Amino acid sequence: MEGEPISALCTPALVVDVDKVKRNAQRMIERFQTLGVQLRPHMKTHKTLECADIMTAGSRRCIVVSTLAEATFYADHGYDDILYAYSVPFDKVERCAALSERLELFQVLLDHPDALEQLKKRPLRDGRQWHVWLKLDCGNGRAGVLHSDPAALRLAQAIAEAEGVQLTGVYSHCGNTYNCRGVEQIQTVARETTSLILQFMEKLKAVGITCKSSIGSTPSCSHPVKDMAQLCEVHPGNYVFYDVQQCVIGACSLDDVAVKILTRVIGHCPHRNQLLIDCGWSGISLDGAGKLPTGYAVIEGHPNLKLLSMTQEHGRVEPISGQLDYSKYPLGSLLTLIPYHSCATALMHSVYHVHSEGRLLGRWIPTRGW
Amino acid sequence: MEGEPISALCTPALVVDVDKVKRNAQRMIERFQTLGVQLRPHMKTHKTLECADIMTAGSRRCIVVSTLAEATFYADHGYDDILYAYSVPFDKVERCAALSERLELFQVLLDHPDALEQLKKRPLRDGRQWHVWLKLDCGNGRAGVLHSDPAALRLAQAIAEAEGVQLTGVYSHCGNTYNCRGVEQIQTVARETTSLILQFMEKLKAVGITCKSSIGSTPSCSHPVKDMAQLCEVHPGNYVFYDVQQCVIGACSLDDVAVKILTRVIGHCPHRNQLLIDCGWSGISLDGAGKLPTGYAVIEGHPNLKLLSMTQEHGRVEPISGQLDYSKYPLGSLLTLIPYHSCATALMHSVYHVHSEGRLLGRWIPTRGW
Repeated sequence: MEGEPISALCTPALVVDVDKVKRNAQRMIERFQTLGVQLRPHMKTHKTLECADIMTAGSRRCIVVSTLAEATFYADHGYDDILYAYSVPFDKVERCAALSERLELFQVLLDHPDALEQLKKRPLRDGRQWHVWLKLDCGNGRAGVLHSDPAALRLAQAIAEAEGVQLTGVYSHCGNTYNCRGVEQIQTVARETTSLILQFMEKLKAVGITCKSSIGSTPSCSHPVKDMAQLCEVHPGNYVFYDVQQCVIGACSLDDVAVKILTRVIGHCPHRNQLLIDCGWSGISLDGAGKLPTGYAVIEGHPNLKLLSMTQEHGRVEPISGQLDYSKYPLGSLLTLIPYHSCATALMHSVYHVHSEGRLLGRWIPTRGW
Repeated sequence: MEGEPISALCTPALVVDVDKVKRNAQRMIERFQTLGVQLRPHMKTHKTLECADIMTAGSRRCIVVSTLAEATFYADHGYDDILYAYSVPFDKVERCAALSERLELFQVLLDHPDALEQLKKRPLRDGRQWHVWLKLDCGNGRAGVLHSDPAALRLAQAIAEAEGVQLTGVYSHCGNTYNCRGVEQIQTVARETTSLILQFMEKLKAVGITCKSSIGSTPSCSHPVKDMAQLCEVHPGNYVFYDVQQCVIGACSLDDVAVKILTRVIGHCPHRNQLLIDCGWSGISLDGAGKLPTGYAVIEGHPNLKLLSMTQEHGRVEPISGQLDYSKYPLGSLLTLIPYHSCATALMHSVYHVHSEGRLLGRWIPTRGW
């Protein structure tokens, strides 16, 4: 279907605007070149080779992944310097060891002494070392040792001192930027996280340990603060696609969103003042819980329409106010949904249709699983 | 990994108890054999060949699907008598025509005169007829002409009279049973839907039209009312897996649920009285919105644990009351999640691990897309 307009696609279909992808990627590259900080882009949003090539500017080096399936997929395609930024799962130590022995640089992450014990129990062959990042929780409230917990420093020391193991860096995900509204709030969180990580690096230095530092999240890296120049790395990911959530946070504008769902009107329900579209939660996900003023998505060019609810293959659309004029939405007509959370939406699709200015260029196939 | 215990799987993993699948399937078969009603099982929950073979008792005939991808997948595997129970999408008329010309019996569904026009514009070759079901909305509030709308009878007549088109039946999905709590409420909805459909059949008869009738939903078909014996077909689907939602509705018991998610503890967060598991929304979906007393799932054997929130690859678990005893949940230990909505959970997995009494038998690979 190359060269055809995206309207030729059967729906629901995920379409990627490759020009916006390239623009989003290039801006992030330039932002951190200017700051002198290494960008290590996260692959979890798209999980494709083509998008990774754009995010790494073709280097195929220095990426972060959320699953071992991604790590293996990228390793199989010539990628190296891969950070598996997920508290090393005990059932996957052997697979991590295999990647560590196969690649130039495969890096893992942990936040508990028991995980360090697991790595020590599986020394790498050929004199190789485990490359380990310590995960700190700087207020995000998910994984990581709490930054203020004395156990954090003890664990860093234990990693640094362990046989066959090297402390590569200290890593923090400032996912708490997702609660922000506007650049000022984002930058406050970014500044706090940076400050907490840098304080921890000072504590490490005081006990004779030096290693890298990294923080990340798309909001903080879309509006970096000056202090971030003191970090070694950043690791955002969603920015390559962006989404409505990032607009609400203040990380991007709606025009930056590179991924959309094409859907068609498949039903008129005048007795309920609704219409039905062929995109249910199987096509866009339930992320966002429908809490936008426009429900589960923004319907491009139709600010008065709301994606009210969904079942597996149906979406119910109604006007925010007034009566639907069904003559404007004949059966078969196309609507474009801008997703609330592109990571969740992309995961629902096994094919992404890539276009430039509405003309199809080809398909990207993401990897799946764990 | 055949013969190994399911605990040997890397997590998160979707496991299917094939004995429960067979039991659920067999009970549904017997229930409608007794009533003398044709069971046309829905494939949308699992989308696999193996499960379809169990649901059709090996006949490979008489199924219903929600996507054309499913229809094609089953047709490619020797299935026939397939009903694509989805308001015929205008972008897929040609693909529907191809299936109609290829199979003995491919059936479509519609609820709008414009859809009938689409079919008439594409007459089938070799003197074949379009086999068309009319979709009625009997209170479900999704697709279908409202049962009481005079347009319903007019559309039925138009289908019956159209050249190259045959009115095969009248179809209603009583998805409003999903709001029920307990068998009595389920049966009230089942009785109402049956009654409305049968009244419509009488109206058809009065104008000289006879055709089939079908209603369905897992709750109504798990507890059928006597009147349903007057229907020609039923079309439930979820029952083969069931889930917590069906338990809450009163369609099944927790012991009937055939699909679960294995997950492992990957983090201890004593400062928040939480632990982290390696199942996020990518492994179980956000369906249910976390509104169960136990959050997004039931954690088997741990009634005091709640799956509070999830991000893409992490689940946050906390006790419903009291302090977590972390010694009971060491890193790496297994937990089993019973999903809120198995249709949504299954869709997140590209491999189902099938077991009998906890021993792995093999893998089922679902079809995906539209």
